Order: sequence, then C-alpha cells, then structure tokens
Amino acid sequence: MATNTVEPGPLTGEEPKPLLDIKTPTPSDIDIAQSVKPKHISQIAEVKLGLSPDEYELQGPSKAKVRLSVLDRLKGAAYGKYVVVAGISPTPLGEGKSTTTVGLCQSLGAYLGRKVLTCIRQPSQGPTFGIKGGAAGGGYSQVIPMEEMNLHLTGDIHAITAANNLLSAAIDARMFHEQAQSDEALFKRLCPTDKKGNRAFAPVMLRRLKKLGIEKTDPAQLTPEEVSAFVRLDIDPDSITWRRVMDVNDRFLRGITVGQGTEERGQERKTGFDISVASEIMAVLALSSNLSDMRERLGRMVIGNSRQGAPVTADDLGIGGALTVLMRDAIMPTLLQTLEGTPVLVHAGPFANIAHGNSSIVADEIGLKLVGEEGFVVTEAGFGADIGMEKFMNIKCRASGLRPNAAVIVATVRALKMHGGGAPVVAGTPLPHEYLTENVDLVTQGCCNLARHIKNATGYGIPVVVAINAFSTDSPAELEAVKSAALEAGAFAAVVTRHHSLGGAGAVGLARAVVAACEQPTDFKFLYDVDLPIKDKIEAIARSYGAAGVSYSPEAEAQIAKYTAMGFDKLPICMAKTQYSFSHDAKLKGAPSGFTLPIRDVRASAGAGFVYPLVGNMMTMPGLPTRPAYYDIDIDAATGRVLGLS
Amino acid sequence: MATNTVEPGPLTGEEPKPLLDIKTPTPSDIDIAQSVKPKHISQIAEVKLGLSPDEYELQGPSKAKVRLSVLDRLKGAAYGKYVVVAGISPTPLGEGKSTTTVGLCQSLGAYLGRKVLTCIRQPSQGPTFGIKGGAAGGGYSQVIPMEEMNLHLTGDIHAITAANNLLSAAIDARMFHEQAQSDEALFKRLCPTDKKGNRAFAPVMLRRLKKLGIEKTDPAQLTPEEVSAFVRLDIDPDSITWRRVMDVNDRFLRGITVGQGTEERGQERKTGFDISVASEIMAVLALSSNLSDMRERLGRMVIGNSRQGAPVTADDLGIGGALTVLMRDAIMPTLLQTLEGTPVLVHAGPFANIAHGNSSIVADEIGLKLVGEEGFVVTEAGFGADIGMEKFMNIKCRASGLRPNAAVIVATVRALKMHGGGAPVVAGTPLPHEYLTENVDLVTQGCCNLARHIKNATGYGIPVVVAINAFSTDSPAELEAVKSAALEAGAFAAVVTRHHSLGGAGAVGLARAVVAACEQPTDFKFLYDVDLPIKDKIEAIARSYGAAGVSYSPEAEAQIAKYTAMGFDKLPICMAKTQYSFSHDAKLKGAPSGFTLPIRDVRASAGAGFVYPLVGNMMTMPGLPTRPAYYDIDIDAATGRVLGLS
Repeated sequence: MATNTVEPGPLTGEEPKPLLDIKTPTPSDIDIAQSVKPKHISQIAEVKLGLSPDEYELQGPSKAKVRLSVLDRLKGAAYGKYVVVAGISPTPLGEGKSTTTVGLCQSLGAYLGRKVLTCIRQPSQGPTFGIKGGAAGGGYSQVIPMEEMNLHLTGDIHAITAANNLLSAAIDARMFHEQAQSDEALFKRLCPTDKKGNRAFAPVMLRRLKKLGIEKTDPAQLTPEEVSAFVRLDIDPDSITWRRVMDVNDRFLRGITVGQGTEERGQERKTGFDISVASEIMAVLALSSNLSDMRERLGRMVIGNSRQGAPVTADDLGIGGALTVLMRDAIMPTLLQTLEGTPVLVHAGPFANIAHGNSSIVADEIGLKLVGEEGFVVTEAGFGADIGMEKFMNIKCRASGLRPNAAVIVATVRALKMHGGGAPVVAGTPLPHEYLTENVDLVTQGCCNLARHIKNATGYGIPVVVAINAFSTDSPAELEAVKSAALEAGAFAAVVTRHHSLGGAGAVGLARAVVAACEQPTDFKFLYDVDLPIKDKIEAIARSYGAAGVSYSPEAEAQIAKYTAMGFDKLPICMAKTQYSFSHDAKLKGAPSGFTLPIRDVRASAGAGFVYPLVGNMMTMPGLPTRPAYYDIDIDAATGRVLGLS
Repeated sequence: MATNTVEPGPLTGEEPKPLLDIKTPTPSDIDIAQSVKPKHISQIAEVKLGLSPDEYELQGPSKAKVRLSVLDRLKGAAYGKYVVVAGISPTPLGEGKSTTTVGLCQSLGAYLGRKVLTCIRQPSQGPTFGIKGGAAGGGYSQVIPMEEMNLHLTGDIHAITAANNLLSAAIDARMFHEQAQSDEALFKRLCPTDKKGNRAFAPVMLRRLKKLGIEKTDPAQLTPEEVSAFVRLDIDPDSITWRRVMDVNDRFLRGITVGQGTEERGQERKTGFDISVASEIMAVLALSSNLSDMRERLGRMVIGNSRQGAPVTADDLGIGGALTVLMRDAIMPTLLQTLEGTPVLVHAGPFANIAHGNSSIVADEIGLKLVGEEGFVVTEAGFGADIGMEKFMNIKCRASGLRPNAAVIVATVRALKMHGGGAPVVAGTPLPHEYLTENVDLVTQGCCNLARHIKNATGYGIPVVVAINAFSTDSPAELEAVKSAALEAGAFAAVVTRHHSLGGAGAVGLARAVVAACEQPTDFKFLYDVDLPIKDKIEAIARSYGAAGVSYSPEAEAQIAKYTAMGFDKLPICMAKTQYSFSHDAKLKGAPSGFTLPIRDVRASAGAGFVYPLVGNMMTMPGLPTRPAYYDIDIDAATGRVLGLS
C-alpha cells in the first residue's frame, strides 16, 4: 500500500545500521522496488528454505512455484512459530499491515538471523489499474518484483477466473439443454453408446447417483424415474447464487442480462460479475490442504438449488474434476522475496468480507515445516482484527489444525485519533489538522478500539504484540500513550516500528518482542463451538464486536432455515461486515457497544466451507474512476521496465 | 486434433525404424503424450536451439519463454528456410494439418538431422472442455506436455483476456463519467493539481492532444474548446465494436445487456462476449514485431467512433501503455517440444476468419535466426489454404517482411472424396460407405479442390509440396490418384505420409521433398497491391476463390466508405469466410466458380492492421453441448496426472 508516505519520527537509537541503501525522503514504492535486484529465486528456495531442485518450479528468474511434495518429505518435521498479523479498525488509508508484515520478516531474517517466511495474499490485478496502489508492502518493506506481485504473478487468479466461469457456462448450458430435451434424449447424450456398443457412467456421474441414493453402475439398469432424477438437475434460475467473475474493475458488469443471443431461445437471465478474488474458488484454494481436498471442495460447491429445494453442486454438473485440472498449478504457492532477501510465499487472496480474507493453509503449512522449530512464519489476516483475525482463528485454523503462537496487532496514531473522535479521514483529500499535530487526548480516547482488539485476541489464549507503525507527525507522548494503553489492555508488548522508512532495521524492536512472545505458553481456544446452531455462532461473533444482540431479516431467517435443512449448519461463520467499525455502521468509531447487529441475508460457500451472513451491502465488483491509474502505466520499450505502477 | 484415429495403410518400405516405441493400434493422444517423458526444456533451449541461459525464462521444467533479446544477438544472422503448412478445404473432422506440421518437423529434426523449429498457434482453452479435442497434434506427432499446451500454457491468453476486458471496462466507465460531469470537472480530474500545485498531462494524453492538433503541453494553456475536445471522447454507443472476451465456451454471453446494477444510473447497453482468441489483441500479438511495435498497435486499436464520426482509440482512452504492460510477458513465445524432442514455439492463436489465423511473427523470426541458413522453420496457417495461407502471405508476410521458401498443402483422400461428391461428413456420426471403400473416381473428381489450392499457392512464386495424410482405408490407387493430380496441378512434389501412426519416421519422404523444394529458386509476389482501394483488394481475393464478382450489402458499403475516410483503406484484407468451401457457401464443395461473393459487413482491426469483410455469420463464441468434454476430465490426486483430456 502506497499510503504511508509520511516520514517517520526520530530514531530510538536502538536500530541497527540498515543493510539497504536508504534514501530520505523515502522514494516511491516502485522506485525502491526497482532499485534492488532480486536474488535468483533458486537461491531463496535452496539457501533460505532448503528446498531441493525438484521441490520447486522456476517461473522465470524471480518467481517459483513450490510443489506440495515438500510436505511429504517433511512429514515428521516440527513446526516453526506461527505469527498472525492483524490490525485495529483502519482508516480508509490503511495502517500499513502488509508493510508491517514484510518489515517484521525482513527484521527477523536479515537482522536477527532467524529462519523466517512471510505468507501473504495475492492481490487482485483489477484495482492495480483503478485507484488502489499495489499490495506488495511499501517503502523499504516490500515484496519484489512488485510488478510481478501486482500483475499476473503465476496465473493463479487467472486459473480461478477460468474455473469459475467454466462452471457458470455449465450452469446456463445445462438449463438450456434440459429445457430442450426429453429425459431420454438427455440420458442418451449424457451416457452415449460407444463404438463397441457399451454405455457407462463417467466416474463423476457416480457421485450424483450416490447422492440420489442410486447404487447402480450400469446405465441400462436405471428405471425411468431414476433416469429422470439423474438427468434433470432442474435448477431453479432464481436460486442461482453462482456469478461469473473477472479480474477487472468493471462496474458495468455488476448487473447484466445474459442469454440475449439469437440462438439462446429467449432464455434470458439476470445475473452479474464479481471481481475474481470474490469467487468461492479463491476461498477453496485458500482453505484446501492438498490436491484431493481441493478436488472434493470444488465438487461440493453449491450453485443454487433445484425447484424441489435440493442443493445443486459442481459435481452434479459433472465438472468438479475439470475445475481441479484448471486449478492444479494454482495450488502451488508462489515464492518471491522481500527487499532484504527473505522468502515470501504468496498464495490465494480471498475477500475479507464475503470470504475469510486470509492467505492459504498450504503456504502456511509448507512454511511452518520449512522454517523448522526455531523459525517463524508470519501470516497476514485481512481487514481489522475483528474480521481477518477472527476468521483466521475460527475458519482457517479450524480447517488447518494449526495454532498460532502469537498475534501482532498493527496500530497507528492516525487511526487511533480517528477512533478518539478525530474528523473523518478521506482518501485523496488532505488530512485534517488534528492528525498533523500532537493531541495525546485524542489518541488516548481512541485506544478503546485497540484495547478491544487486544482483548479479543488474547481471548484465543495467545500473547499479543502491538506494532505501533510510526509516522513523522507522531509525537513521543502520543506513541507513549498508545504503548501504555496497549499494555494496560493486556498486550504482551507494544513496540514503535519504522520499517517503512528503514526496512528491517526499523522493525528490530518489534521482531525481538515477537520472538519473546512466541516463547510464551499458549492456551488456544476458539470463539465458538462449530457444532452450535448458525444463530448461536453468529451471536458469539456479534458479542465479540460489542453488540448487545442480533436481528435477522426475513430473508436471513429463510436462508438459515434452508441451510440448516441442507446440513450446512455445522460450518463455521464468515461475517461479511465493514472493516471500518466493530459494528455494522462504518461511522461508529472507537469501541461501540450495545448495538444490534442486523443480518440482511445469509449465504453459504459449501465448498470453501463456511456460511456467510451479510451485514450490510458488500461491494464485490469495483469500478474505475474518471482518471484511473492506467493513465500512468506504460512500458519502457527499450528496457521492458514497467512505469507508473504504485 | 484427435480426429485422425484410423490406422495407416501398408508402409512403402522406405521408412526408417521409428525412434519412438510405437504401439498398434495407435493409443489415445493423451496416453501417447504421457508415455514420453519430456526432456528438460533447458536442454531443448540450449542444445537444440543454442540459446544462452539468459535468453529464456523457465516456466517449470517443460516450458520456457524465449526472450526477444535473442534477436539482438542474432541481428546479422542468416535466415533459415521458411515453410508454411496449409490444407485443402477440410471436412468437419479436420485433415491433420497440425499433426502433419509436427510430424514433418519430427522427421526433419530426429531423422534427417536438420535444425528445425515448429511454430504453431496456442489453442484456446475454452473448447478443451467443450467438444473439440486438443490441438497439440495427434498420435505419434504431438507437442508435449499436451496438458500444458491445451490448458493455461504460460498465460498468454489470460493476459489477452485481462487486457481486452480492461479496455472494455474503460469504455463503459468513460461514457459513464462523461455523462455525469461537465468539461471542467472532467478536466480537473483527468489533469489534477498535485501536492506542489502543478498540473501536467500524462504522457499518453499527449497522443490524444496531437491527434486533435493541439500542440500545447501545459493544461493551463488549453482554451475551453480545446478542453472540451480533449476530455470528451463522446463515444457513440451504437458504434462500439469492442466486445468483452472470455476463454470459456459460454453461449449465454453471446448477447448480453450490461449496466443494470443499481449504481450505473440506467446506462444500459447491449453487447456481448467473444472467446478470448477472437480479441483483436490476439491478432496484435501475432503481428507485432517487438515490444514497441506492440505498444503502438495496442494504442491504435479502434473501439468505435465519436458521435462526430472520429475513430476512438485505446490511446484516446489513455490505456495503450497499460495494455502493453499486461502483455509484456505474452510477447515472449513459449518453447515446448515434440514427442521426438524437436523444439516448438507456441505463440498466439488468432481466429482464422475474423482474424488472420497464423501464429506470431516474433516466433517465426526468432526461429529463422536460430535454425540458421541450413535449418527449417515450419509454421502452420489455419483453415484451408484459401484462408490461412492467403492471409499468411498477404497479411503476415507483408507485416514481417519474411518470405516463405515453400508451402506444404495437406490433403486427405477422405476430404477429396467429399469434394468429389461424397455424402456430407458429419462429426460424431459414422462415415458414409464411400469413405471406407476404394473409389478412385470420387477421389479424382475431388482433386479439383486440391488443384486450385496448389494453383493459388504457386501463384505466390514458391514451390508447393502436397502431403497426402494417409489413412488405413485409403487404397494405393486412391493415393496414386491424388499424387498424379497434385503433380499435374503444378505441385513440386506429392508424398504419402504416415506420421500419425509412426511419428517422424512416417514423414521422412515428406521431409525429403520439403528439403528439395526449399532448394528451388522462388519469385515471391503478393496477391494484391495493398495500396489499392478496399473493394479492389476484396475482389482480387474473391477471384482466387473462383468468384465471378462481389456484392456488397448497404452496411458493407457504408463501412467501406467510413474506413476509407478514416484512412484504413491502405490496410490488407482479412476475409471472414467459411473454411469448408472456396465460396461463401459451406455446401459448395470441390472448386466452385462463377458465384458472386456476398459481403455482409466490413470491420476493421486498426491495431492489428487489417480490414475484415464478413462473408456470412462468424461464430465468435462457442457453446457447450449436453455432455461436454469436462465430464471425463479429472485429476489423479495421488500423482497430479490429468485424466481424460483428448
């Protein structure tokens, strides 16, 4: 994120000499990123991570895909320390969570000599050309090459787009063919007679037969009723929740009508596109533990229901295997490096509202084995800790079986002032006066937000380190106020950090605190028992937000009843809520309490494995502003250098 | 193509012992492909092509991207022999053109010891899951790994999808913002004042200013009229020819309405999706000679016109540079190998009707330099020779400046029987009787189709070798009839070839004939002078089809007038015509003549650099059948092996 561009305050005197050639004022992200020549990625893979040459696939000189076979080799190996980085409720400018994650790792690896691996999400390519900057960190704490990170990388998101949209095409085509054909004709085409006169079910069809309670394996043995049940998915068009996706900010695709070609016989349908990272397939990728688990999850995805109310899955459409084939390379995490040569695994980037907002289980698992018992895996959770960290714990860790050793919560004086009552912070307009001059009271008042995040985090039974991401406008007294408040709220440590302007050298204090925190005993517990009814789970999360209660729209009530009947009530909950407040109202800053959390609707991602209540309207397809970022993006044809990325 | 599955006839006795472990009957394409372990691609790159390690980028162990820097190193090097493979007018089953291209190269390289490089198109991924098989050749003449070839490969098509759709999003967003804002507001946003109080045009904006005849570089100096001209593209929504694309067979996207989201203020518009390979960006990729040429072509692409009739380009939208950045990896051809270890460059795959149907200039150019004076580059032209070869000569060679040494025309007894009056050949139904038993008369009558293709090809001043792709049902007399007819029509040689069932060993006769043909002198000439008016060029091509004349719809007349006024009349012509007949009517087999070729409409791809008349309706988005190929596609989770691709 290119948002933290102000200069840091004076040094504490504890920082080591930076290894990077630091310039002041801090140059632009792309200028810093392009000033450091990346090491050949095979060096990172083999020297830093101990991978053998057959455990990774080069993708050019600075990217590699790590094969999952490494997990077989390291089956019995001990896990390293597992650190999750979350944040307080942010301003729209972002508080430097990715940058802190990267800076902390540069410090652990390049200054403290620890084995370390950063696990981060792959950013969506769409916003790169819109209004958002890149997502490779910032300043002297970045993942390089940042062009690769922000563009195609190794094609995982493109694979998701392809798989998602193949399923979409399959849905509409199936409805089209079912409408035009008799049971018999459909059956004849689905199970054709081959050249030798034989008829057989494709293996994927046996899954549907099993679901229907039909044990037969010879097509000739099916009764007409069984044939009809088998060939007719009878999808209710109004029930379809599966939308097409594209990794482009294209607001005109939010709401569309399809099927208006002359040959589609008037079978029009209203639907729309989301941005690709909002696809359930992205969440599946992030939550799969291996190829066969991914195969099962992709097959289980529900696209809607039949007119009789039965969930219709990807495997009912016969497509779960094909989707897996499209995703077979994407399941390998991509290895990159930081500016200071520490390894980074970039893998998956699900939305943090309609999905769980965390990078992949596979990458974390590989990392924890590779760094070994004395090493560290630092993984970032999206949005504020109320969202990203809560989902890290209750969805991601529940699925993986992994348990964190410590949490880092990133705070800024700027955001705390906002929570303390400062004027709204708006991207693209100058910061109001109170953010640029000392105001300890405002900071102190705002620390209620930080305190609640700390309390929630310690509730999981792990130590919490607060990283105070310092800006040049922060006064020593303001930083001190945050520190005291953090310790008072139960943080294990609170450390001022200056990694944006100094790289790993600026985060050594933070790194030391994290090392110490990881030596503490933990007593991990989930926020809720996953076997509770859907509403009980929602209410447990709502209480952690400070809500007094939860209200449900009639749609939400109906969906909860439907999903309970379908057997999806044993899934964890993934709240789709604003990141700007603990509550549903982005304007309620600080640590609101006593409010009623309104659930507008409830959806399920049965393949990924969660139910997601909608608290307000979530934007799943961004748009382009009048002057998009693409105006500045070009290529130097002589050198091939990318210009104008930010 | 997996269509040529019948067994070959008896050997001639001239074939060398196959190097491959040949099985009879010929196993399925995927079984053969997976039975050969590919050499590490660095071996192919360095040993077979003499590339240095910094001239290619590994993409895993069996794919590499070749950097264009190799052309700098080989600036003064002599070109190898340049052979284009085309076909007679095919049946719907295909006549094995890709397979012949691959088999010929296996023979040249692995049996005759020549330096050789195969240049072929990247197949679209969409049809892999629909009804078509793969496009990596077939039998014992294949490009491997065939899974890579038929799936994501190195992401070039995904890059095209991303770039195409970013431009689409930009068009609709620009119309939306122009409608909502005054000239002044638009100008303020397009040229904002920076933190230091300065205002500047982005470099890409200077292109638009220049086009408008405004020489100023300081935004403050523009008059209100100039501001208005600059900020208002004033796109006529009805003129927009730019459609979105997706590499999926999704018929329900052929005709859609966009802009129906609640926030798009009712600015609905009818449009649709094509399959990605139909994007003009694919044609641009294929016709660009280097990165800066691609930058210029992408910027020149016309998306429609203003209400005043001026063409609106990608650079008018400020997006040409960003599109180039998205395409910067795609401009590097992808190196693969054949089953017999000869090198293959896969690069670009434009449609052969609305585009020119040939792989990239860059790949051919790199190949011709790398194989050296004694070596061979064999490149395939899509569809029948009337389309693919004509466009190879008049569009691709005109753009590249390269000149072929010989053409190979692939013929089958099956297709010639059809041209001689055999019953229609329909995919998925058994072949009629006349195709399975000897019928020399039918073959002889059908040779008029072959003869006209030969005549057209020799008209370019190069020798023509006819490759008779033999099936087991072909009798010696039938094969002999084709041979005589070919020689009589002016072919330099005509050779029976059995590469499908024998690999390169089966194509040695063909390879020898090609080597001999390439020793002949050539006297290259184009079919038409590119500076002629649009209609004159269309008529020259129509005459080569056998047409007596050309008729134009009122729409076609209007478009020709419009493009002439816009200055696009000096571009070559790219006929969008059926491949199943020389004429516009797929049912007119043989060598029809005297017909009038009807031009329904005319479009331009100003960036790629051609005008394309529409002769009939072209399908630019396939659909999925009742039982798509995806039913059989799955992954063996234990080994990661792809199952069921064909």
